[in-house]
Amino acid sequence: MSTRFLDACRGLPVDRTPVWIMRQAGRYLPEYRRMREAYSFLELCKTPELAAEVSMQPVDILGVDAAILFSDILTPLEPMGMELDFVPGPVFDNPVRSMADVEALRKLEMERDVPYVLETIRILRQELAGRVPLIGFSGAPFTLACYMVEGRGSRDFSIVKKMMYSTPEIFHALMNKISDMLIEYLDAQAAAGVQAMQIFDTWGGILSPGDYERYALPYSTRVIAGVRGKGAPVIHFVKGAGSMLDIVRRAGGDVLGLDWHVNLGTVRDMLGPGFAVQGNLDPTVLYGPPRVIEAEVRRILQENGGRPGHIFNLGHGILPDIPPENALFMVDCVHRHSIVR
Amino acid sequence: MSTRFLDACRGLPVDRTPVWIMRQAGRYLPEYRRMREAYSFLELCKTPELAAEVSMQPVDILGVDAAILFSDILTPLEPMGMELDFVPGPVFDNPVRSMADVEALRKLEMERDVPYVLETIRILRQELAGRVPLIGFSGAPFTLACYMVEGRGSRDFSIVKKMMYSTPEIFHALMNKISDMLIEYLDAQAAAGVQAMQIFDTWGGILSPGDYERYALPYSTRVIAGVRGKGAPVIHFVKGAGSMLDIVRRAGGDVLGLDWHVNLGTVRDMLGPGFAVQGNLDPTVLYGPPRVIEAEVRRILQENGGRPGHIFNLGHGILPDIPPENALFMVDCVHRHSIVR
Repeated sequence: MSTRFLDACRGLPVDRTPVWIMRQAGRYLPEYRRMREAYSFLELCKTPELAAEVSMQPVDILGVDAAILFSDILTPLEPMGMELDFVPGPVFDNPVRSMADVEALRKLEMERDVPYVLETIRILRQELAGRVPLIGFSGAPFTLACYMVEGRGSRDFSIVKKMMYSTPEIFHALMNKISDMLIEYLDAQAAAGVQAMQIFDTWGGILSPGDYERYALPYSTRVIAGVRGKGAPVIHFVKGAGSMLDIVRRAGGDVLGLDWHVNLGTVRDMLGPGFAVQGNLDPTVLYGPPRVIEAEVRRILQENGGRPGHIFNLGHGILPDIPPENALFMVDCVHRHSIVR
Repeated sequence: MSTRFLDACRGLPVDRTPVWIMRQAGRYLPEYRRMREAYSFLELCKTPELAAEVSMQPVDILGVDAAILFSDILTPLEPMGMELDFVPGPVFDNPVRSMADVEALRKLEMERDVPYVLETIRILRQELAGRVPLIGFSGAPFTLACYMVEGRGSRDFSIVKKMMYSTPEIFHALMNKISDMLIEYLDAQAAAGVQAMQIFDTWGGILSPGDYERYALPYSTRVIAGVRGKGAPVIHFVKGAGSMLDIVRRAGGDVLGLDWHVNLGTVRDMLGPGFAVQGNLDPTVLYGPPRVIEAEVRRILQENGGRPGHIFNLGHGILPDIPPENALFMVDCVHRHSIVR
């Protein structure tokens, strides 16, 4: 098996900079779109054979150095009691607004409640047959709380903010319950076979540094401490957190995910050798011509300067209208221009 | 006249920290909503008496230390030849996509093309009668280019990014034309009577630091150099730029606007005494109860630590569903808790 990805997570030297792409199994691939003609998004998530097939596509097509479980960060919330609908974006019909709502949330039993996630992992490990490692994932507590309280994506997050500021006891009770669930959910993924895990904090960056520290950091820290050190390295990615990475780093994790708003070299200087990093190409660079893609890949590799512990990735998920050949070209550029020392 | 606001822009000591609110004339005020029942947004913008009345509302109601011209950053684009529509968000029916489109953009003659802007300024100066200073404004070149090329707001800005990366000569020609226009537009505002001006770069923060430096900074720098030093201090606000303020500062400007993602004290340490700053309360804190608003105002004032050259503001525009009494309370907190040394 290629050990590039896992070695880089652990800060060890590698032969080439490993690369994978957030949302690499997704709509920009015609192979994925063909699957979606026959099945809904939830059907893909909940049918292990289909989820595994979709997860394999970018490994086969792009030659990335890791596979990631095809699933959704909202998956474990449904069996907690959240009624998920797609209209077409995900919506919860019973958002969490009161302490009674928090108390009504059910504790998950993983093999009963999310068997398809665990089965997908088992199938994938077999199908991958050691070609590349498999990444599991979850949302971070704050991001999940945003969805559960707002009931949907939001621009200003007024409802969850009102809860945080006006009834913090409800907010903290919810965050506690989510965190407990996540530790067991990620543990179950590891037991089923994932070899690394990424925690996505899509919305952590809407908070001011002080609010992040007060309302989000303690729970992410607890989740990471709860799952780390059992063999699967943890990648912690908080989108939009470029100006508070000194706080975010305190959550722990082996790898800090970086979006494209920071200079990767500057961040590595700040973090020191204890952290690996993942990132951080602007996803829209893949709209550009090959010379721009190549130049930007080289710039990021140069910013890293051959330091061990760099996993190349976009700074956010790949966009659905990116030409797949541009993603392929990017992966190839990373491997060709890797600076290894 | 209260000299608080202008003195703070120039880094001079003040009796109380001055405060105003981005979008302070707007939908959260019932007085504004009543005007909007009778007139469209564009009617308000283009009828000097109405625009002046709306601009005065927050001065009378909240007791802010500056008035800002009621207008829109898209206002000067219409006479350049952009066909503006509201559906209900602003849309240009003829987005800029080619060099011919750029060449077809007309040069503005301010008194002919935006007379209502200049007349609003003249009326406001009379009505204010020296109570508080009047701020003029424009969009930054990159933000205006985004609207002109995309034709509307966007999430991923794929069209303008493709232009930047694939046909940079068209993009740069457009940015040049916008920058020339902005210098004359802001000069005309100053001649009509604005006593400070803010340049809003709503979308500059979507760029990576390297792309900001290459594609946006040179033009913002040129605009600021073109209008600065004629008496009206320039506030430069790039939303979402917290992790590249070391680059943004190079655009010049007397005051650097800060969003809520940064620690104001840390930024002031980084900038040194040459820059005043404006900001940076999280706009959603105004959803919270008084004790939270008061605590956050005090935190920001403490981060500034009494250094001259701080204008209090939100880190972005006030949200339309904020209770006006919370905005009033915030203004009062700033004045009560000002740390002046």
